[in-house]
Amino acid sequence: MKLYEKLARDIEGQILKGVYRDGERLQSVRETSRQRQVSITTVLRAYLLLESRGLIKSRPQSGFYVTPPAGERAPAGGQADTARPIAISSPVDVSRLVLSTLRTISQGHAIPLGSPYPDPAGFAFDKLGRYAHAASKDASLNELRNALPPGHPQLLRQIVRRHLDQGLVVDPAEPIVTVGATEAINLCLQAVARPGDVIAVETPTFYAMLHAIERMGMKVVEVPTDPELGIDVDMLARLARELPIAACMVMPNFQNPLGFRMPDERKAALVRLATERDMPIIENGVCNELYYGDTPPGTLKAHDTKGLVLHCSSFSKTLTSVYRIGWALPGRYRDQVEKLKFLNTLTTPAIPQLAIAEYLERDGYDHRLRRMRKAYAQQAGLMRHAVHRWFPEGTRTSNPQGGYVLWVELPAPIDGMEIYQRALERGITVGPGYMFSVSDSYRNFIRLNYSSPWSREVEQAVATVGKIAASALRARR
Amino acid sequence: MKLYEKLARDIEGQILKGVYRDGERLQSVRETSRQRQVSITTVLRAYLLLESRGLIKSRPQSGFYVTPPAGERAPAGGQADTARPIAISSPVDVSRLVLSTLRTISQGHAIPLGSPYPDPAGFAFDKLGRYAHAASKDASLNELRNALPPGHPQLLRQIVRRHLDQGLVVDPAEPIVTVGATEAINLCLQAVARPGDVIAVETPTFYAMLHAIERMGMKVVEVPTDPELGIDVDMLARLARELPIAACMVMPNFQNPLGFRMPDERKAALVRLATERDMPIIENGVCNELYYGDTPPGTLKAHDTKGLVLHCSSFSKTLTSVYRIGWALPGRYRDQVEKLKFLNTLTTPAIPQLAIAEYLERDGYDHRLRRMRKAYAQQAGLMRHAVHRWFPEGTRTSNPQGGYVLWVELPAPIDGMEIYQRALERGITVGPGYMFSVSDSYRNFIRLNYSSPWSREVEQAVATVGKIAASALRARR
Repeated sequence: MKLYEKLARDIEGQILKGVYRDGERLQSVRETSRQRQVSITTVLRAYLLLESRGLIKSRPQSGFYVTPPAGERAPAGGQADTARPIAISSPVDVSRLVLSTLRTISQGHAIPLGSPYPDPAGFAFDKLGRYAHAASKDASLNELRNALPPGHPQLLRQIVRRHLDQGLVVDPAEPIVTVGATEAINLCLQAVARPGDVIAVETPTFYAMLHAIERMGMKVVEVPTDPELGIDVDMLARLARELPIAACMVMPNFQNPLGFRMPDERKAALVRLATERDMPIIENGVCNELYYGDTPPGTLKAHDTKGLVLHCSSFSKTLTSVYRIGWALPGRYRDQVEKLKFLNTLTTPAIPQLAIAEYLERDGYDHRLRRMRKAYAQQAGLMRHAVHRWFPEGTRTSNPQGGYVLWVELPAPIDGMEIYQRALERGITVGPGYMFSVSDSYRNFIRLNYSSPWSREVEQAVATVGKIAASALRARR
Repeated sequence: MKLYEKLARDIEGQILKGVYRDGERLQSVRETSRQRQVSITTVLRAYLLLESRGLIKSRPQSGFYVTPPAGERAPAGGQADTARPIAISSPVDVSRLVLSTLRTISQGHAIPLGSPYPDPAGFAFDKLGRYAHAASKDASLNELRNALPPGHPQLLRQIVRRHLDQGLVVDPAEPIVTVGATEAINLCLQAVARPGDVIAVETPTFYAMLHAIERMGMKVVEVPTDPELGIDVDMLARLARELPIAACMVMPNFQNPLGFRMPDERKAALVRLATERDMPIIENGVCNELYYGDTPPGTLKAHDTKGLVLHCSSFSKTLTSVYRIGWALPGRYRDQVEKLKFLNTLTTPAIPQLAIAEYLERDGYDHRLRRMRKAYAQQAGLMRHAVHRWFPEGTRTSNPQGGYVLWVELPAPIDGMEIYQRALERGITVGPGYMFSVSDSYRNFIRLNYSSPWSREVEQAVATVGKIAASALRARR
């Protein structure tokens, strides 16, 4: 039993014995940490575990409370219900804590430096809404049988065209529209590997990749990844000689959280390795259109001659995340992925597909993207500058070449979960580093989202987090 | 009172007065039409109304007869009630051929007697489109973090309310909105069982169930299912003593393809068995609101005291299938299902959720449902009658109590795939029986969709299929 599980069991015993009454506030994380001589992370994990079991409940800006009996709970739809964490029964499970952390990050009304999603302020909701309304009058779209996979022909054409504009020639019969890139990644992974298989990922890696692997009952091997050059291809080659690696999942451009743009020769080398070993690669390209330089980044897919690269992307980072429209270019696995799409969700709704296609055909998407890229590039600089100004000495940051997140390494003694917790008490979220690995390698890291237009409020939030980090560092020394 | 209702009342009076005796043949539809100077359709509707009340019964190629006492009735449908050897499938692989068949059925411009989907003519697309347009202006819905599982609070409330109206008390914190019932069924199955597990299903069963099982790498055992009473609970109990059955997937109301309404005491017995064995049941309730009688059918869930029933449903059969909005009531597996939803598609689009919620709150959904139920009940009778008129002697049909599909047993030498193929050449689709089982038990069965308003075109399509069947039978003899 892990330390936090033991602590959770102790506290559970106290609750059951009536040491705490219903509705009563537990000791703060810090008090418990001091009293029990265990780390903040351990206490937090214990509390989150108890929360996932429904025994306690966190309240924003306040602390953890013993859950009142069911009858006293807030009605459905109330903050209390929607904010409850996701519990998982399996003992070896990376996603339980991540999901409860994500939920806090995602649902609070706090300043969302921890959010994984782009600020929707730059999105063209009015126009999309009008196109969707027009599409809803297209009687042919009322027939489910006209909306089966692979997707709406007009959107499929736009997807192929946009890839072409970025230098990737796509067979018009290849793309399959999905419910966001999340579904695309899940389907592609299921198409290429089986339960028990080993999947190679970058480290740190975007947690959604880890969750997909966990869900399929697969195993993960984390491959060292350079913050500026991407996954270590030589190391991957060495690992692949020793381990039966069934597939590799990478995000070669503007990786979440590192932000690098993998150089073209490295991309070519990775695809060469995959070809030699007949090892499929799932390529996450969701940020490819958010590059800061003058030219769009290349893809792994462009180097692929054997149909081994399954490219996944979406419109969620650039156009709208709430329509949930993504796609897969599954290479030689196309038919399996299409079948899995059919089995998983039958079809992707047609009205939002057509609305996006119409928008792409007519409405200056490229102009909007240029503005978005310019703004994100500026905000990246402002965020880095603010972190270096307000965070304690020894803090290091990534140097994103695209996307909208900054990876921050705090001085080693600092625990990212403590920063997360204390920032949350001040109405600010950050993304704790532990979410990005199945190991404990990123304890002193946090991820910051800079997609919101820069403002005094954002600057102050960064300053607050910096001061929290400085005070945590002082306390540890 | 409509003309056919008046005619039905007259004939009912004659039957009650003893003008016709039990088992006696009524005047033919044509004779009555000529004699009463009313249309064929009016006579048919009157006869079907009487049939739906159990007063008369049609016999293939013969006519309508005053109903004999219950003991003499022949079961409609398959050989399912005859004991046949039970085989556990190796991990199922039914879907490839089924999917290509479904694709043909679904995408053609043929007359869609084979379609699994309801005719959308009865759906309220205009109003839904307007609500969706209004919802698209709700800025809070542009934030993905406001749309995470379990779903939009307003829709969750409506789901709970509708279940209440049908006699099922649901904890407001239980429902999880999904991308159609398809996603709900997949997530529920993954929550309760693991690869290699054995899952019990009805036979014939809705192929989507078989696909979900196949996709998860599970095995299937098909349990004999009475065409009027549903799954054989005693047989399931016996099987469960011999086999490690991990879960059971059933559609107790208006099952696709049999159309039965499982009696309440049998539902209770099934849930008792599940409780005794701690065996979860996935209950497909997508047609529950399409009942033909006066009262909504009960659910397995209503009998469940242990959280073992995972009820899955959607708005796809009654309101719109293209919005792809379904839900799960996962009982004690709620938290796992919510987590899996998050991992599978992150979130269900919020705009269609809110549009449906607004529609349900304001726009006479119940009125529309009543009309739909009445139309489907009539069309069921018309379709049965047309089949008995046009298909070769020895053809038997199910007697649907709800929904919109008819299960047709052709004389044994006929191959449903041959009918499917030859009908397709004539621009008509039918659903071949082989799709509904992992065995070859339903080779001589087809499923017909009668959700479209009855028309000369539909009648002619049925006649054409009947003639194809007759010629196939002659060729086999």
